[in-house]
Amino acid sequence: MSLPPMAWNAWGDPEAATPLGDGIRALLVSALGVSGEPAPAPDRDTVPLRDSTLADTDRAALADIVGAANVSTDDLQRLYRAGGKSTPDLLRRNEPGEQSAPDAVVTPGDDDEIAAVLGYCSAHGIAVVPFGGGTSVVGGLDPERDTFAAVVSLDLRRFDRLVSLDDVSGEAVLGAGVTGPAAERLLGEHGFSLGHFPQSFQFATIGGFAATRSSGQDSAGYGRFDAMVRGLRVVTPAGVLDLGRAPASAAGPDLMQLLLGSEGTLGVITQVRVRVHRVPETTRYEAWSFPDFATGAAALRAVTQTGTGPTVIRLSDEAETGINLATTDKIGGEQITGGCLAVTTFEGTAAHADSRHAETRAVLERCGGTSLGEAPAKAWEDGRFGAPYLRDSLLAAGALCETLETATTWSNLANLKAAVTDALTTSLADTGTPALVMCHISHVYPTGASLYFTVVAGQRGDAIAQWRAAKATTTETIVRTGGTITHHHAVGADHRPWMRDEVGDLGVDVLRQVKRTLDPAGILNPGKLIP
Amino acid sequence: MSLPPMAWNAWGDPEAATPLGDGIRALLVSALGVSGEPAPAPDRDTVPLRDSTLADTDRAALADIVGAANVSTDDLQRLYRAGGKSTPDLLRRNEPGEQSAPDAVVTPGDDDEIAAVLGYCSAHGIAVVPFGGGTSVVGGLDPERDTFAAVVSLDLRRFDRLVSLDDVSGEAVLGAGVTGPAAERLLGEHGFSLGHFPQSFQFATIGGFAATRSSGQDSAGYGRFDAMVRGLRVVTPAGVLDLGRAPASAAGPDLMQLLLGSEGTLGVITQVRVRVHRVPETTRYEAWSFPDFATGAAALRAVTQTGTGPTVIRLSDEAETGINLATTDKIGGEQITGGCLAVTTFEGTAAHADSRHAETRAVLERCGGTSLGEAPAKAWEDGRFGAPYLRDSLLAAGALCETLETATTWSNLANLKAAVTDALTTSLADTGTPALVMCHISHVYPTGASLYFTVVAGQRGDAIAQWRAAKATTTETIVRTGGTITHHHAVGADHRPWMRDEVGDLGVDVLRQVKRTLDPAGILNPGKLIP
Repeated sequence: MSLPPMAWNAWGDPEAATPLGDGIRALLVSALGVSGEPAPAPDRDTVPLRDSTLADTDRAALADIVGAANVSTDDLQRLYRAGGKSTPDLLRRNEPGEQSAPDAVVTPGDDDEIAAVLGYCSAHGIAVVPFGGGTSVVGGLDPERDTFAAVVSLDLRRFDRLVSLDDVSGEAVLGAGVTGPAAERLLGEHGFSLGHFPQSFQFATIGGFAATRSSGQDSAGYGRFDAMVRGLRVVTPAGVLDLGRAPASAAGPDLMQLLLGSEGTLGVITQVRVRVHRVPETTRYEAWSFPDFATGAAALRAVTQTGTGPTVIRLSDEAETGINLATTDKIGGEQITGGCLAVTTFEGTAAHADSRHAETRAVLERCGGTSLGEAPAKAWEDGRFGAPYLRDSLLAAGALCETLETATTWSNLANLKAAVTDALTTSLADTGTPALVMCHISHVYPTGASLYFTVVAGQRGDAIAQWRAAKATTTETIVRTGGTITHHHAVGADHRPWMRDEVGDLGVDVLRQVKRTLDPAGILNPGKLIP
Repeated sequence: MSLPPMAWNAWGDPEAATPLGDGIRALLVSALGVSGEPAPAPDRDTVPLRDSTLADTDRAALADIVGAANVSTDDLQRLYRAGGKSTPDLLRRNEPGEQSAPDAVVTPGDDDEIAAVLGYCSAHGIAVVPFGGGTSVVGGLDPERDTFAAVVSLDLRRFDRLVSLDDVSGEAVLGAGVTGPAAERLLGEHGFSLGHFPQSFQFATIGGFAATRSSGQDSAGYGRFDAMVRGLRVVTPAGVLDLGRAPASAAGPDLMQLLLGSEGTLGVITQVRVRVHRVPETTRYEAWSFPDFATGAAALRAVTQTGTGPTVIRLSDEAETGINLATTDKIGGEQITGGCLAVTTFEGTAAHADSRHAETRAVLERCGGTSLGEAPAKAWEDGRFGAPYLRDSLLAAGALCETLETATTWSNLANLKAAVTDALTTSLADTGTPALVMCHISHVYPTGASLYFTVVAGQRGDAIAQWRAAKATTTETIVRTGGTITHHHAVGADHRPWMRDEVGDLGVDVLRQVKRTLDPAGILNPGKLIP
């Protein structure tokens, strides 16, 4: 069994780590009062790990189902599935002391094996945490044992195939363990693309995208991941669900929408049927400057409500524009534009991309935008998976850095942005640090948009507790101000205290009953999503 | 309490009835062996009606909740809520003998009254059938008592307001009882439109659209009704659900999608928050001719997968084109075009409509289409709500006329169309009549499309049984050939035997558990949707 590709104590590929530039390091030291020096990272081979509590009989039984090579209780295997990649996760990983971890890693090879594993674990009181790319930033992979004797990480990596492609209909069936790049490679061999590029793209999996309602940076053009899904195969302790018979249906409630976003608590998604499109002939790029965020947001609203059809459209606020966060490799360098930077791209046939580009440009100009040409839009695209690496360096230098996101209607957007910014700034000030809060719109809808915040502050005392308090205050503010508790990061353990605010008491009752029906023993991903 | 506007024994407004032309009457007589003469309709004032079984104490208790003027056991009131408008419904309505009907009609005025009615009915064993426009064509309004002592029709007509309009975000909250024309009028006063024009538009309601996952003729431009919904308020026996906090969310399963399509079995939808758009500046029209259905379908697929952006795009097959069914007022007249007629429209700003029109035209021409200019597209729009009136006249003349619909992937479309046509033709031939089967595509998606069939045959013997048998054979064929059992007519009583095929045994278990949670006494719309 090989190890997952992400670093155990940081984002992503250790080879791709981004050291801090001198400018930003000096800024951290002077503005946030932190050391600015990289803290030494613990050694993965000597980190003390919670002992495995999986009984030998259980291990043997699981090995009988999936084969001995596909069950491991090795410390390193367990450490690499110890959780996700939120800032609290990474801070905890780099603390001295014992690390939590699942008691075993199981890598089944087909649906029948998963059904047998779930059956065995249901009967023998073993919790199961489905594991895809390991990129959760909401505690969705925490190895909670709940009341059970042990917890196993069920790694879907062997579900790594393009199962089928219907090139007439533009539908592909992908195994749940196919990663973002693998999906593009497998589909690209046939001239197709999925077009789903969330920041987790390089590591996250198709099953994870579905289980968390992921949203990619091309969502204006290709939609959220849940909107791409045409069918799901889900193995649950109560049996198999095979959902989605047609492109659209009026055959009652859409049960697929119960399993999308189920975060491993209702079943294990093993196959996803998705809409795919021909690899676009052309991509057009244009960046824009707006005098302020309100003007830029109104322009994005006009584009979306008119339906001019960009593939990507995003807007950084003044703070984010000021430090070039949108173009990662230039952070702290010369500012690209005053005011607010917006990025647009257009994909498709040349005629399609050109007509969308022309109509969008006309609306953006009419709404007060000034074209910056292609270069900043291309620079954004080049650096778009880089920001999480930067967080690793900031955390190591003693800064607190995290992101959070929400969505609301256009009419409530400015109000919610101000309230969240204030909540973050005030709650972190209470811990004795200034905070730089930056924001962008990256997902637009005719009726509203997402708001994605990045906050950088100084670590003070117990940095995990420091962030938890700021996050709680901020989430309460989001709830009170009419935003959703998450637009695309999912619920996991971290947002679970506010699920009742999101769906109400009766909504929680419905979720619990659905869980009881599909997972009667309650073994699936305890402590996540459902209060 | 006034009567609903639809005729009790026919579609729609009696004033708008369409007599058959001489040409089509002659065709019916010669081809189908029917009389061609209108049968006399029963008199609504003397039709024998099932006696009301509502106990006086129950009637008094309901009157205490909603007011005496809002409870009726009058025969005429009950007769007008006796069911929907499927062909079996209309045939039954025109038969001699006792008619089924709810035992009372209740018209509550607010959510609290509905909650109290549901509480009372749950405690006292009274079934409740929510009633909007009364346009169901799948038995969704059948006044089933199940094991209960009585069944009441809960008419939402008093929920007739535009509750609020957010003109920045393009969101409106509409009462469940607002009809299609009322929604357009209420929104139009503020410069907005919903853009939902199903064939039932003139009578059906916002609550009904949501409860049945309705799909309108402008779905290519504005989406299915379920895609327009941003929030739902649902009063259930177990409490109130207020769902939908943001334009999009990753906060777990989308519970709104459980209530959309719930067909009155899980709760009573009282308010719907919908996306609305500015009344379009411009509408462009263009009709097309294709040499055959396969060529036309491939052209529609190219348009949809390219994303050229028509507001309406539809394609009649050779048979439907041959009798001008697409332009109702010319049925049986001179054929507009050989081959297959397609209709396109484009709405929005002039720049938007023109660019979509130009791109669509280029694709349709490249795919073998020949422009027929504006006129046939405008004629389609003018006559688009007329077909159900024609059915009334056909039924009265001794013909059997009904529609059914499904959807599938583009790659399976020809296969499914052939299989359904064969099933209808063969099963009706077994009853001794030829059948004319016509088909169109009226809803397109990147991965597939709907197929809408109209069948005209001769009534032979028990016409209801004759149609039930043909419908059952056809639905089994749809299931076997990979279509959904309904794309936009919903499930009701008529498609319920095949829900298990649609969602599987475990899916049915989930639906039953959700029902048990929200409607513990099982009073809501018995015998519909959930097997």
